[in-house]
Amino acid sequence: MIKARVTVTLKNGVLDPQGKAIEGGLGALGFEGIESVRQGKVFDMSINADDPKQAEKSISQMCEKLLANTVIEDYAVEIL
Amino acid sequence: MIKARVTVTLKNGVLDPQGKAIEGGLGALGFEGIESVRQGKVFDMSINADDPKQAEKSISQMCEKLLANTVIEDYAVEIL
Repeated sequence: MIKARVTVTLKNGVLDPQGKAIEGGLGALGFEGIESVRQGKVFDMSINADDPKQAEKSISQMCEKLLANTVIEDYAVEIL
Repeated sequence: MIKARVTVTLKNGVLDPQGKAIEGGLGALGFEGIESVRQGKVFDMSINADDPKQAEKSISQMCEKLLANTVIEDYAVEIL
């Protein structure tokens, strides 16, 4: 069994109102010096497979088809 | 300036309907061998600070107060 972590983040330049809200919230709580916050998603997957390279390829396809919106998001696949 | 990544994941044993839905979606798209998917959140932060240790401490406090629900979620802080 192969475990993998997929991280999906907004591309640079794409507005992130959720991140902005968190920034504001942290400021309101008294935390100082926060330049920017951007929020993304993480998917922890377990896959029944033997070949890590094959699994990585398959997970990249999952990202292209479902996990990420590649117009505005980048993804990174990490085999653990 | 210090850059950090915070990863917030559901604790083991906490139900993750969103992850289950993704699992089902991937199966419906024809991907095979998926054992489990669990979804979490990631926060990429830039902080105006010089001391990485101090920054890490401060970010841990942000997690406790705002970024994570520590009853059901774990968090990890990584200084980049």
